[in-house]
Amino acid sequence: MIVVMKSPCSDQDIKHVLTCLENHSLTGHLSHGVERTVIGVLGAVGPSGAPGSIGGINPTLGETLEGLSGVESVLRVSKPYKLASREFHPKDTVVEVPDACVSKGVVSIGGSEVVMMAGPCAVESEKQLMRAAEAVRKEGAVILRGGAFKPSTSPYGFRGLGEEGLKLLAKVRSELGIAVITEVMTPTDVPMVCEYADILQIGTRNMQNYMLLDEVGRIRKPVVLKRGMSATIEEWLLAAEYILSQGNRNVILCERGIRTFEKLTRNMMDISAIPLIKQLSHLPIISDPSQGTGRRDLVGKMTLASVAAGTDGLLIEVHPNPDEALKDGAQSLAIEQFRELMPQVDAVAQAIGRTLVTK
Amino acid sequence: MIVVMKSPCSDQDIKHVLTCLENHSLTGHLSHGVERTVIGVLGAVGPSGAPGSIGGINPTLGETLEGLSGVESVLRVSKPYKLASREFHPKDTVVEVPDACVSKGVVSIGGSEVVMMAGPCAVESEKQLMRAAEAVRKEGAVILRGGAFKPSTSPYGFRGLGEEGLKLLAKVRSELGIAVITEVMTPTDVPMVCEYADILQIGTRNMQNYMLLDEVGRIRKPVVLKRGMSATIEEWLLAAEYILSQGNRNVILCERGIRTFEKLTRNMMDISAIPLIKQLSHLPIISDPSQGTGRRDLVGKMTLASVAAGTDGLLIEVHPNPDEALKDGAQSLAIEQFRELMPQVDAVAQAIGRTLVTK
Amino acid sequence: MIVVMKSPCSDQDIKHVLTCLENHSLTGHLSHGVERTVIGVLGAVGPSGAPGSIGGINPTLGETLEGLSGVESVLRVSKPYKLASREFHPKDTVVEVPDACVSKGVVSIGGSEVVMMAGPCAVESEKQLMRAAEAVRKEGAVILRGGAFKPSTSPYGFRGLGEEGLKLLAKVRSELGIAVITEVMTPTDVPMVCEYADILQIGTRNMQNYMLLDEVGRIRKPVVLKRGMSATIEEWLLAAEYILSQGNRNVILCERGIRTFEKLTRNMMDISAIPLIKQLSHLPIISDPSQGTGRRDLVGKMTLASVAAGTDGLLIEVHPNPDEALKDGAQSLAIEQFRELMPQVDAVAQAIGRTLVTK
Amino acid sequence: MIVVMKSPCSDQDIKHVLTCLENHSLTGHLSHGVERTVIGVLGAVGPSGAPGSIGGINPTLGETLEGLSGVESVLRVSKPYKLASREFHPKDTVVEVPDACVSKGVVSIGGSEVVMMAGPCAVESEKQLMRAAEAVRKEGAVILRGGAFKPSTSPYGFRGLGEEGLKLLAKVRSELGIAVITEVMTPTDVPMVCEYADILQIGTRNMQNYMLLDEVGRIRKPVVLKRGMSATIEEWLLAAEYILSQGNRNVILCERGIRTFEKLTRNMMDISAIPLIKQLSHLPIISDPSQGTGRRDLVGKMTLASVAAGTDGLLIEVHPNPDEALKDGAQSLAIEQFRELMPQVDAVAQAIGRTLVTK
Repeated sequence: MIVVMKSPCSDQDIKHVLTCLENHSLTGHLSHGVERTVIGVLGAVGPSGAPGSIGGINPTLGETLEGLSGVESVLRVSKPYKLASREFHPKDTVVEVPDACVSKGVVSIGGSEVVMMAGPCAVESEKQLMRAAEAVRKEGAVILRGGAFKPSTSPYGFRGLGEEGLKLLAKVRSELGIAVITEVMTPTDVPMVCEYADILQIGTRNMQNYMLLDEVGRIRKPVVLKRGMSATIEEWLLAAEYILSQGNRNVILCERGIRTFEKLTRNMMDISAIPLIKQLSHLPIISDPSQGTGRRDLVGKMTLASVAAGTDGLLIEVHPNPDEALKDGAQSLAIEQFRELMPQVDAVAQAIGRTLVTK
Repeated sequence: MIVVMKSPCSDQDIKHVLTCLENHSLTGHLSHGVERTVIGVLGAVGPSGAPGSIGGINPTLGETLEGLSGVESVLRVSKPYKLASREFHPKDTVVEVPDACVSKGVVSIGGSEVVMMAGPCAVESEKQLMRAAEAVRKEGAVILRGGAFKPSTSPYGFRGLGEEGLKLLAKVRSELGIAVITEVMTPTDVPMVCEYADILQIGTRNMQNYMLLDEVGRIRKPVVLKRGMSATIEEWLLAAEYILSQGNRNVILCERGIRTFEKLTRNMMDISAIPLIKQLSHLPIISDPSQGTGRRDLVGKMTLASVAAGTDGLLIEVHPNPDEALKDGAQSLAIEQFRELMPQVDAVAQAIGRTLVTK
Repeated sequence: MIVVMKSPCSDQDIKHVLTCLENHSLTGHLSHGVERTVIGVLGAVGPSGAPGSIGGINPTLGETLEGLSGVESVLRVSKPYKLASREFHPKDTVVEVPDACVSKGVVSIGGSEVVMMAGPCAVESEKQLMRAAEAVRKEGAVILRGGAFKPSTSPYGFRGLGEEGLKLLAKVRSELGIAVITEVMTPTDVPMVCEYADILQIGTRNMQNYMLLDEVGRIRKPVVLKRGMSATIEEWLLAAEYILSQGNRNVILCERGIRTFEKLTRNMMDISAIPLIKQLSHLPIISDPSQGTGRRDLVGKMTLASVAAGTDGLLIEVHPNPDEALKDGAQSLAIEQFRELMPQVDAVAQAIGRTLVTK
Repeated sequence: MIVVMKSPCSDQDIKHVLTCLENHSLTGHLSHGVERTVIGVLGAVGPSGAPGSIGGINPTLGETLEGLSGVESVLRVSKPYKLASREFHPKDTVVEVPDACVSKGVVSIGGSEVVMMAGPCAVESEKQLMRAAEAVRKEGAVILRGGAFKPSTSPYGFRGLGEEGLKLLAKVRSELGIAVITEVMTPTDVPMVCEYADILQIGTRNMQNYMLLDEVGRIRKPVVLKRGMSATIEEWLLAAEYILSQGNRNVILCERGIRTFEKLTRNMMDISAIPLIKQLSHLPIISDPSQGTGRRDLVGKMTLASVAAGTDGLLIEVHPNPDEALKDGAQSLAIEQFRELMPQVDAVAQAIGRTLVTK
């Protein structure tokens, strides 16, 4: 950490900063430049230092220093996350999901294969779910998505079938052998969702629901952590750090678009987040072009772009009859559209030296 | 709702839209313009219509229509929130908080008075809290703020004292008679927080934590609902609608800055939200210039700007010794700074025909 | 155009709107819904209507109506651009650039081929330019980029060699036969830049420099129009409309990243703009992943993502010695990196049924 | 400047950085922390250092360093602007405008008085302009605004009367004695606009039109520089630096709203920019709540908020008949609304110890 002093600043101000550092068992190293004085902070600050600093006060030291008289700004040198960083864990993390529908009996996310997860936005009925599941499985999807608990911007919107929806997912899973991913929205629901699903999903609105992150950190099932709709990459990795620091290492990040000023798309997919996460972190990253665009007519191209940029998997909404979907019909692919897309995904994956796992 | 068709579009496409409307018991009214065909939707769509549409499927009808072949866009004519709208409730809502420190025994938020809520970001110790509380009360604050549960971006940051912090708040409240506002972060904590606090606060990260909104909707204590850091005004009012629709009418909105590209401030306060909310809604609105700027040196001016724009109250972080704060020291005012600010607040309030309530 | 009235609104307000429409030779069609009154506007409003409305007052009619008493909002039904829209010109526009370095003698932008434009950010010297040009040509680039006029955020930054830089570009062009693209920053420079370059580029800061748009609209050379850093897609197409409406039909759009809250990248590339522009417009679109990310380590993946999403070409900064670049060294590829990238581009292009033109 | 190395990084990488610094006549000071190596850069980098660095290469050194192998990030310690900074010029700059309509014969912007500039968005006719001018002068405005050159997002929109509009402004100025502010859009128009106007305005779209900035830097008339719609405060001050560095010290900044995701307002006013600019710079700052909101019904409150936050002046659109305005009718105040607003402005100004100059 580096403290940049205002120009000019008083000796009193400098002394004040040094004392504050000492109070935190740190040493300040003064450097008087041509224009201004800079204080380098020596000693471990924050999560990646000595054990004593974990769970302690230090992460807010920067804020405290910023508030001191004569301080212009505080520059952080270390990354605020540790367990999620590639520096801490240089090798790619590969998350394994037991999956009876593939010959190996397990799907690996974060390795050389690209994984397709598809299904309806929301579980609406057994018939709808089964039709969707059979169709996406037939085209090569190896994980079934489907929401039983649905966040709805309006209190008057469809909020999902709840446990009944989970049971339908489990039923389809046992019949088709396909693994299942579904969203969990509140800490008390975690045990129940764990009972029925293979992967738990934390939605964009809950990326900073810390008690929920703590809770899914205590289980060992894989967790897909969607990026908050206005979260920086650093905040996203810090949210992953919450889960990791509770002991659950099976974290998969999911880019699903951020909020910008553009009005023609519901969200704007940050495709550059895919290679950036690969540099900063060892965790797998998947893409959700359905939420990421909000428009069915853009899902195909954004799927291909994600694969070309290095995504480890895709989460795509497919509905047997999008026009009658209870939720997000505008962004769901019809089955024929999904069928056309899959060979294109495979072709782009192969062009960059990966393969789409389908069986 | 108005469905705008692409140009050109087929008769088939138009028929498809009309059938879809009929399936939802609605009628489409065709209008062939010079350039394109437009279909007006007659009948009640969404929350503000017939009782049957509340809690139903209709809020997503727009999305379904957007996904149909030949549809260019769907324009909503009605507002998606009802109970929060000024159309539904033309008179200002005034939320009353029992408060032994003022002579009337009650503080009214949303009327002609401006209400100052102040105190430390986080409850750290009895001594710290008592010193802050005495100081802000002495200068005229009538509600004490202080966080017992603190959302922290890093899992290694200070997350608050929990119930111990609530007890300290309750102790100071009983000694000074001042009403207390504090944050609640998860549904299961609502009963406990209710026991100790006069106003519950929903933080920016939880504005769309729907199960938490449902839960505070079931109580009757006042709830301060902070704007999500990237929430539109419409989404914010829909979050308020969640609480209102559960029966709790004591909702107070709080502008606390949004996320933009600017790097010199932590957030950017949307001062225009204050008069805009006053037009669209009957609910009171307060301002948090501490979170709204993240910089102590901007808090004073943004407080005055909020008052001039019509805010009903302020939520300001004041710490007896900001340099030693465990949280958000950089944005907390020292007591002397708060003392200087209060007469200025009063002067601007009077300039626009309001008064700062202090006793 | 549809005028949505407030609820309630007075007969007086409605009459006022109707009169205002009549004053603009338009007719209002009243429709009383359950909740509110809506006025459909019949007649040609804005650019896509009768000739009389072009160049006239109508584009601002919406704003006027929005300001009338009792008006809640005004919804536009027609797109505000005409010549740039696919509705007006359903077939893809293919821009042809004479280019002696390819066997056909011409490069087509907007057809089935993908076109690589590469070279240094700024022209620095004959040696630097020639080395870069020879290298990128050798690897298969068919158009040379290089700035003679450079926009610099700081007045103390490098602003380019000016006409001397143009002459160097022309010299290299005549020696290698490669076509040249370079930026023009002000209307009075347009004739000079035309003398030396094959394609003129309008930079992001000048997307709404209307007098410059008018000027490049009067020539017939191809113009690459970069997206403004906070421009919506509609505003971007309206900027293209400026050029088109002056008679120059050789407009190529260029996605180069927009401004968001993320701090790890200089800009955020909106990859979804590529398929979206293809739907809305007939104009070719290319991508600039160097500006679009600001980071050399992301350029490769974002190039591949752009190709997968359907870009017609790429604009990439390559420098013979990025560490000594006078401008934008951090985002320039070294020659070896460019050499590794090209076969990958070709592979992804082929995976989606296109080819990278190289000779 | 501080160079943060990746962890781990090779000795080779470190040596490379040190050599690069030496090539720029700078010295690197190594500091090996617990986690990573940091290199402090000694010597003058950029504008505020030795004369040699002005106009040179150094402003891009940071970018070059960022691109070197093993470099994690580069932290700037000095501000990139100099002449615009308060450190360079601690005292407030007061810009004086000759103005026959006030008793002193001159209006001072940036001192203790608040200055009201008002008038129509666009000059439409002599009658319209004269009526608006007389009305705003009568209510206490001391500077007349009115656009002769109008940037229009659509090429089919009203683009102003041009020189004819300037002549009308000059005529009204000579009849009423009121000083005049008007926009200039391109370098070649600067001499002509100077002939007719007292203050030149650079619009939001031209904040980074560097050749225009250079040109108004060569004159000595006051220049109002509007913030770019997605400009950071630092970029805005760098644009001011362009003008200042050419010798024109009469620069007035104008906050006019930035672009965000909110859809209910055209722009979002960054009121916090007012106190922030006052800290960082000695230049006066004014506010434009008409452009800043795009909604007539918010202009009044945002005017008062600006004054409370410390603005030195206001730029407000007033039209004798907003419903018939050729441009921006929705955000123009009617004369009665302006009349009601002025005493409120005065009251808030007095509440913070300033006065509204009216005569």
